[in-house]
Amino acid sequence: MDRIDEALGLVRRAVRDMAGYVPGLQPGPGQPLVKLNTNENPYPPSARVIEALQKASNETVRLYPSPDAAPLRERAAAVYGLRPNQVLCGNGSDEILAMLMRVFLDPGDTVAFFQPSYSLYPVLAAIAGARTVAVPLPRVWNAEELAALDVPAVKAKLFFLTSPNSPYGVSFPAAWVARLVAGFAGIVVADEAYIDFGGESSLTLLAASPRLVIVRTLSKAYSLAGMRAGLAFAHEGLVREMIKVKDSYNVGRLAQVAASEALADQEYFLAMRKSVIATRELFTADLARQGFTVPRSHANFVFAVPPKGISARSLYARLLARGFLVRHLDAPSVSDGLRISIGTEEDMAALTRVIREETRGDQ
Amino acid sequence: MDRIDEALGLVRRAVRDMAGYVPGLQPGPGQPLVKLNTNENPYPPSARVIEALQKASNETVRLYPSPDAAPLRERAAAVYGLRPNQVLCGNGSDEILAMLMRVFLDPGDTVAFFQPSYSLYPVLAAIAGARTVAVPLPRVWNAEELAALDVPAVKAKLFFLTSPNSPYGVSFPAAWVARLVAGFAGIVVADEAYIDFGGESSLTLLAASPRLVIVRTLSKAYSLAGMRAGLAFAHEGLVREMIKVKDSYNVGRLAQVAASEALADQEYFLAMRKSVIATRELFTADLARQGFTVPRSHANFVFAVPPKGISARSLYARLLARGFLVRHLDAPSVSDGLRISIGTEEDMAALTRVIREETRGDQ
Repeated sequence: MDRIDEALGLVRRAVRDMAGYVPGLQPGPGQPLVKLNTNENPYPPSARVIEALQKASNETVRLYPSPDAAPLRERAAAVYGLRPNQVLCGNGSDEILAMLMRVFLDPGDTVAFFQPSYSLYPVLAAIAGARTVAVPLPRVWNAEELAALDVPAVKAKLFFLTSPNSPYGVSFPAAWVARLVAGFAGIVVADEAYIDFGGESSLTLLAASPRLVIVRTLSKAYSLAGMRAGLAFAHEGLVREMIKVKDSYNVGRLAQVAASEALADQEYFLAMRKSVIATRELFTADLARQGFTVPRSHANFVFAVPPKGISARSLYARLLARGFLVRHLDAPSVSDGLRISIGTEEDMAALTRVIREETRGDQ
Repeated sequence: MDRIDEALGLVRRAVRDMAGYVPGLQPGPGQPLVKLNTNENPYPPSARVIEALQKASNETVRLYPSPDAAPLRERAAAVYGLRPNQVLCGNGSDEILAMLMRVFLDPGDTVAFFQPSYSLYPVLAAIAGARTVAVPLPRVWNAEELAALDVPAVKAKLFFLTSPNSPYGVSFPAAWVARLVAGFAGIVVADEAYIDFGGESSLTLLAASPRLVIVRTLSKAYSLAGMRAGLAFAHEGLVREMIKVKDSYNVGRLAQVAASEALADQEYFLAMRKSVIATRELFTADLARQGFTVPRSHANFVFAVPPKGISARSLYARLLARGFLVRHLDAPSVSDGLRISIGTEEDMAALTRVIREETRGDQ
């Protein structure tokens, strides 16, 4: 037996058999693409964030950060009307999702989520050795259709609900989430990565729902994808259990500074969000005029289904050749559309023109 | 049943029953203590690091970081004479230790380590639902005693070897680690968090030992505890498996920049290390003159056993009252000593004086 095979033979079967999550392409600095594939914010973070980062880039980086990110917890609690011990900070919201798996899942336990939604869930479930139930989500065009959806009758330890959904962008109304919490016996995780762009948060349900955990990120609406800062809101009893499974110093000093300062500048946040939403509405209308069907998004992306006769996959390639990187997902339920992040107004106007040119001959 | 009890009832028993890791005290900015309890470097990082951080604190933080920290991997590979695919970057070395648990441990598997060593290992094992074998490490005073130690006959999936050991500071010779790898059927993790202060690394064994994983941190010798950057060196086959269980964007943009730049400035690193080692040797000699027994440390801390008649615990409290925060560990095998990080020469000279004053009447 080859000696690396001996080492690989010690790897858990659950890990050996899995493929791992494949993040969206991150083009290098030499590739001049308009990057609309991983839902980053096209605008810089608040100038206060940059200033605070530069100021904090000093010799104190030799010291460990606050283990529980105490100042950030306090700031987040103040912004969201919670107590600090109802808030947990993560190295991005992905780390918080992974922590939830570690808190709740023994091998053989079950995790449920809608299909399509965030494709990281089944990967994290596989690492935990858990079973998954992917509940088919019908193609929905607006929040009203989600509101009318039956709460899935599923037995599981955890239900991950991406709201707004990815890739559709449609948001679940809080009343629907309340029905899910009431009808489901496990922990409901409302993954609100995109909630800041107009969706209805489940935050109002938290006080009455100890089985609800809300997950947020500063990557999208606060323009901090590069800093890695996520938040969980939950009953303090659950936060305590989550802290046990987190790395001691999971959020670095500068990430804590950036996140605190970003949350503090709500004025900038609201202005930036307004721009993204306005551009999304313009872009959606432009797509509709060109025969695309687009669900009513509450996120910073849209799911665009090209008119009959144009394949999403070939359009993806043509847009890439023209300098626009969007996302095409292979899963059969969504392979007929493209997920396009909302960039600046100029980017989206340019993309609209290019789409027009590239689809003109095909219909 | 109270409704939070219902939620807590869904928490895994393994998590409910564990206490969690308690990191060393991180005093707030208002507490003017000389902080010698968590082995931070007393010197700032290279000026090149600060400059690079300030420069990188710009609008690009809105973009996700390189998922595999590609530029940092390449830099580390160049510095350590490896190929980039033999290097994995973590959100601190703690994250790398946690990843190793996720790659190799199914519930019921066994993890071995010396007792005393890093007290995080049993916590991570508990999260994994794994059994632990704590192999008693006799009180050792120098590397020669470790070299003469029998390799433990233990059956486990993983053996975590802290070298230099914490809290003793004594380093395992590479030849001894080679014997451990040969005599142990699982994965040997050489946790070399403190290796840069004079210990003998096991890096030379890596090419011939696919069951060896080496873990490093930039928190100590590179003064970047606040940035969270750790490294693993292993066979590329194992690195591939580890990547599957890591968060997609586990190392933030600024952490990648700081770590790359710190590794690039080897001149500064060598000068700083020389200072810490010189101060350690001075401080060790001073302690010996005052009747303390101190193992020959290859780390940036010493384990100081006070002379007969002086309890380590009471000395800890007295030093704290005088403004010096050191570490007293409760575990019976090491409760007779204090683990004291090496600060600046001035700090340690001041501490030596205070220790003299506080212990004068007790002997």
